[in-house]
Amino acid sequence: MNSFGRIFKVELFGESHGKAVGVIIDGCPPGIALGDRDFDADLERRRAGAVGTTPRREQDRPELLSGTYQGYTTGSPVCIMFTNSDTRSEDYAQFAAVPRPGHADFTSRVKYGGYADPRGSGHFSGRITVGLVAAGVVAKKILGFARFGTTIVAAGGQADVAAAVAAAATDDDSVGAVVETRVSGLPAGLGEPFFDACESMIAHIVFAVPGIRGIEFGDGFRAAAMRGSEHNDPFIDARGTTAKNGSGGVNGGITNGNDLVMRIAVKPTSSIGKPQPTFDFENKAMTTLAIEGRHDACIALRSAVVIEAAAAIALADLYLVAKAAQAAAGTLVHGGSHDSR
Amino acid sequence: MNSFGRIFKVELFGESHGKAVGVIIDGCPPGIALGDRDFDADLERRRAGAVGTTPRREQDRPELLSGTYQGYTTGSPVCIMFTNSDTRSEDYAQFAAVPRPGHADFTSRVKYGGYADPRGSGHFSGRITVGLVAAGVVAKKILGFARFGTTIVAAGGQADVAAAVAAAATDDDSVGAVVETRVSGLPAGLGEPFFDACESMIAHIVFAVPGIRGIEFGDGFRAAAMRGSEHNDPFIDARGTTAKNGSGGVNGGITNGNDLVMRIAVKPTSSIGKPQPTFDFENKAMTTLAIEGRHDACIALRSAVVIEAAAAIALADLYLVAKAAQAAAGTLVHGGSHDSR
Amino acid sequence: MNSFGRIFKVELFGESHGKAVGVIIDGCPPGIALGDRDFDADLERRRAGAVGTTPRREQDRPELLSGTYQGYTTGSPVCIMFTNSDTRSEDYAQFAAVPRPGHADFTSRVKYGGYADPRGSGHFSGRITVGLVAAGVVAKKILGFARFGTTIVAAGGQADVAAAVAAAATDDDSVGAVVETRVSGLPAGLGEPFFDACESMIAHIVFAVPGIRGIEFGDGFRAAAMRGSEHNDPFIDARGTTAKNGSGGVNGGITNGNDLVMRIAVKPTSSIGKPQPTFDFENKAMTTLAIEGRHDACIALRSAVVIEAAAAIALADLYLVAKAAQAAAGTLVHGGSHDSR
Amino acid sequence: MNSFGRIFKVELFGESHGKAVGVIIDGCPPGIALGDRDFDADLERRRAGAVGTTPRREQDRPELLSGTYQGYTTGSPVCIMFTNSDTRSEDYAQFAAVPRPGHADFTSRVKYGGYADPRGSGHFSGRITVGLVAAGVVAKKILGFARFGTTIVAAGGQADVAAAVAAAATDDDSVGAVVETRVSGLPAGLGEPFFDACESMIAHIVFAVPGIRGIEFGDGFRAAAMRGSEHNDPFIDARGTTAKNGSGGVNGGITNGNDLVMRIAVKPTSSIGKPQPTFDFENKAMTTLAIEGRHDACIALRSAVVIEAAAAIALADLYLVAKAAQAAAGTLVHGGSHDSR
Repeated sequence: MNSFGRIFKVELFGESHGKAVGVIIDGCPPGIALGDRDFDADLERRRAGAVGTTPRREQDRPELLSGTYQGYTTGSPVCIMFTNSDTRSEDYAQFAAVPRPGHADFTSRVKYGGYADPRGSGHFSGRITVGLVAAGVVAKKILGFARFGTTIVAAGGQADVAAAVAAAATDDDSVGAVVETRVSGLPAGLGEPFFDACESMIAHIVFAVPGIRGIEFGDGFRAAAMRGSEHNDPFIDARGTTAKNGSGGVNGGITNGNDLVMRIAVKPTSSIGKPQPTFDFENKAMTTLAIEGRHDACIALRSAVVIEAAAAIALADLYLVAKAAQAAAGTLVHGGSHDSR
Repeated sequence: MNSFGRIFKVELFGESHGKAVGVIIDGCPPGIALGDRDFDADLERRRAGAVGTTPRREQDRPELLSGTYQGYTTGSPVCIMFTNSDTRSEDYAQFAAVPRPGHADFTSRVKYGGYADPRGSGHFSGRITVGLVAAGVVAKKILGFARFGTTIVAAGGQADVAAAVAAAATDDDSVGAVVETRVSGLPAGLGEPFFDACESMIAHIVFAVPGIRGIEFGDGFRAAAMRGSEHNDPFIDARGTTAKNGSGGVNGGITNGNDLVMRIAVKPTSSIGKPQPTFDFENKAMTTLAIEGRHDACIALRSAVVIEAAAAIALADLYLVAKAAQAAAGTLVHGGSHDSR
Repeated sequence: MNSFGRIFKVELFGESHGKAVGVIIDGCPPGIALGDRDFDADLERRRAGAVGTTPRREQDRPELLSGTYQGYTTGSPVCIMFTNSDTRSEDYAQFAAVPRPGHADFTSRVKYGGYADPRGSGHFSGRITVGLVAAGVVAKKILGFARFGTTIVAAGGQADVAAAVAAAATDDDSVGAVVETRVSGLPAGLGEPFFDACESMIAHIVFAVPGIRGIEFGDGFRAAAMRGSEHNDPFIDARGTTAKNGSGGVNGGITNGNDLVMRIAVKPTSSIGKPQPTFDFENKAMTTLAIEGRHDACIALRSAVVIEAAAAIALADLYLVAKAAQAAAGTLVHGGSHDSR
Repeated sequence: MNSFGRIFKVELFGESHGKAVGVIIDGCPPGIALGDRDFDADLERRRAGAVGTTPRREQDRPELLSGTYQGYTTGSPVCIMFTNSDTRSEDYAQFAAVPRPGHADFTSRVKYGGYADPRGSGHFSGRITVGLVAAGVVAKKILGFARFGTTIVAAGGQADVAAAVAAAATDDDSVGAVVETRVSGLPAGLGEPFFDACESMIAHIVFAVPGIRGIEFGDGFRAAAMRGSEHNDPFIDARGTTAKNGSGGVNGGITNGNDLVMRIAVKPTSSIGKPQPTFDFENKAMTTLAIEGRHDACIALRSAVVIEAAAAIALADLYLVAKAAQAAAGTLVHGGSHDSR
């Protein structure tokens, strides 16, 4: 069930150390200018190399297998593939018997009965998120009128993110972080009451990103500690601007035209060099595990653009669904099926 | 797009002051014992009347229109209807020009062009959640091996919930709260990597409940302030039990057999008697609004069972999908399509 | 899995002799004028009473439970319920042990393990199609620019349909028929290459109507006997009109603006008064069955409007999806994301 | 909207003369033995080269990009890619102004506004069906207990298919055909009443195959000419065997355990060497078109295995959904939620 969306539908495929990873976008409108270079900026944001990120360097060169012609989307499915190259599979053999804490080694075994590809965490790898970033680039083109901004507002509970990450790296440890994504310029009217609420769709896809522990919109968990008189957020003009944007841009599941604001809790990377206890399922006893190989000291540094891409994908789908309804209603008005109001 | 689920699919309908509200459950397996009385306990938990809840008293008598026969589900769609009776629509006429802060009055107008039923917030009303509770009762029967527990762990930032609510009510005000749901006895293996992760499905439907501002699993936002060595949660036995359950029962999007634990931030009720500023879209000027009528001082008191029902619905769907895969794999083994492993 | 559609989604519920049958329409745009009387014409076409139709007379009074306000659709789910009244359940008790040929008595038992409601064929009853007809009325309003025409072109292999039906009725027998539906005025561009081809969507929902044995578009099965030079159908003007409309209004899964033409084979009613052999699963021996009660001598007389409604539902969904893509592409043009072409 | 299925979901991508074509299968159970060679037999059946088929020879070498490990499916999405090699794009430039009769040149232009890839019909090409065949191979493995048989029962109205095709080829013409697919060994219980009827799902995906004009099950269109007493098909033993299998293995949308039998009308190939009239949209006048290049004299020769694969995909999905329901019901019995019956 690895697909998401109703009109703008994305599907991820691939394993970390398999031949390739990628994404298919179905329902992408025709006529969007799209070339290899369009992915550069966001892929660079996701790429490893900075302090606190793994030394693994994939080229991450997107190959547009289908769905574009002469520089534009055609309207048929867009398949974007990334060939895997820099794989070192010998790192991962041991985790079948000694599943890493915080990883999917154990649940994968239960669910797939030992058939899953264990190399580099297989289909559970953060590597798969490169396809999300690619689809996010296309989604943002559909939402050309909107601006996306994503920052890491805290790591390890500190505002000085760089210091917190450096300290963790020094200790062969890792650190969690809070990512904030803000989307400006969205029209009011995206989302549905109940099941396909704007928050529902975004939360659904954001929790698909590995390592997410929580999501909140607007005032978020702080709202739970407030009185209504303090929390309520009056409209202050005829465009629907609110005084504080405490609802994070959504009322009743539907965007209200104010900035969409969400914060996401990203856990500390589970793979750390520091020795840690875990259970040896073969020898039926506790053991100590020190995970060698390449790790991110703060996965949130790379998750930020993935989270932003995920939000963009959900919003592109919400936008296209809203357009369908508006177009239909518009047609009805002109077709005379009901009185003007 | 008011439906949710892949195999166990629910769809809500109705307006607060219309003829009826209700739910259809598609994909409900046959042979589940189901009668009117089965809904009593959860409907009572949702019902108004306690301190801090609105005096509106609906009978909330479920009518099983379809999908059961001689006390058992038949396998065809289960439609459960609740006729509306206690409606006082005159309370709501003014909100077209002066949309209530925190309500969907404004976004509904933008999205539906003035056609939405304004009475009692129409389809945006918390009244609609009675259908969620009813579907949750059926979902819990499918998950008969699991135990659900839901508590309000804080209101207005205080652990003494009753005191916080009473104080807010005294002030014609309202107060937010944090709801915690815990599900014990789930099998490992529910959920998918990426888009239909266990957390994705639950967050999707929980954000469909009105007034939700955030959701977190396990350590949640606290994980963002932790080091990996502190956060990592070792397995301690061959059944997959973990030491701290910091991941809230899910690894890699898939349940690991530990308790599923989530916390949800519920905002303070937007409708308060206390006067508050808002914009008058007709006169193009700020005005003061004091909302008369029936309100809940702490909507979380009633949302708790709705959140629990939402989680149950998502889990029932995840369970049935997992069953399909397991059954297929089992068949393959017996059918000799591959070697045993 | 009793729902159909991507944006305009319908879901049927109910059993023949249960409390009610009905339909929910999700994704219906707001602002469509809709009242009880709008259903009269099509419900009358479906109603029993003519020669060759069962004497059972339901009032078939639609009750709009939700989704309309002051005479217009609101944009929230439209639930239309029909209360069952004229039920005589004693007719059906025997068919558990002696399943009727051509009926779902046997497959229902296998699939639902004996839990299905047997009265009047339960959820398998043609009675359920009243909801399809109701949803079709709404679909046709969305497609206000199109004209639907449905005729029975043959019964029992004869063009004189009335004579064929009367003869069958006289013999306590039944007779099959071919129904032709023609839709004029559709825009070109509805449908997708491959899985959601226009013919795919229509065939999907038409085969949901009980008693359908085949469907063909344009030249249909005759095309299989043709040469390409004979079958090919040249465009003859700049609007895309073709000389013969042999493809029935669709090329490559997408409407071409010519009339959409389909023919559907409807089997003879399975329930006949004439004695027929069948197997007694209790006594493990062949027996003779003469089905008493109320039957249609030619179910196609009533299926015609149901088939037309089904086609309308599929087309309304295709239309709304196409609108979404067009609106998005239009936005892109104005947003300057690509050159004009 | 290029995906199909609920649990076993397939999605096609690619253009005839683009970099690659392929398919993603989501929801494929783990543990199915799957290697490159498994595709040989069915790909060979689809391959060009026989009398009446185009001389274009693609190698059709499937590349398993994801979803398998050490010879077994892993449970994560299976992506199968076919690199395009033998492309001669100059053949197709003219069809923008002079759309070929019976092709999607015109509708593609209307729908995609000129952005579609015109080379080799782009995403509308029969080349895309290689992905369907590949997915069908996997589907048949899931249905390892069933046997599929597909034959061409007539071409150009004649039973001597080879003669009809040869004669058409001699005349630079093409010829239509009727394909019959029979599936033996299916369990009873697959399919749903109404929208996801077995026939609905199969017809949906079969009409996705290019060039299909009609589909019928069992007695098909002949049933429309029959009396009920002639058409009714009695059960003759306790296993549910029927005397004539006139319903083609389905009652009430659900398989009854008899052979599933369907016949499909395939039109004559639209591309013929023989000159034919068509409209020149640039010069606004009729013109004569003789299509050079590579054509199939009888596309049904290659469609047969594609149709069979399509049916297999639909049945695999129906089977997995049925398994989910059965497993759930079984669990309930053991869990004691209801009395045994």
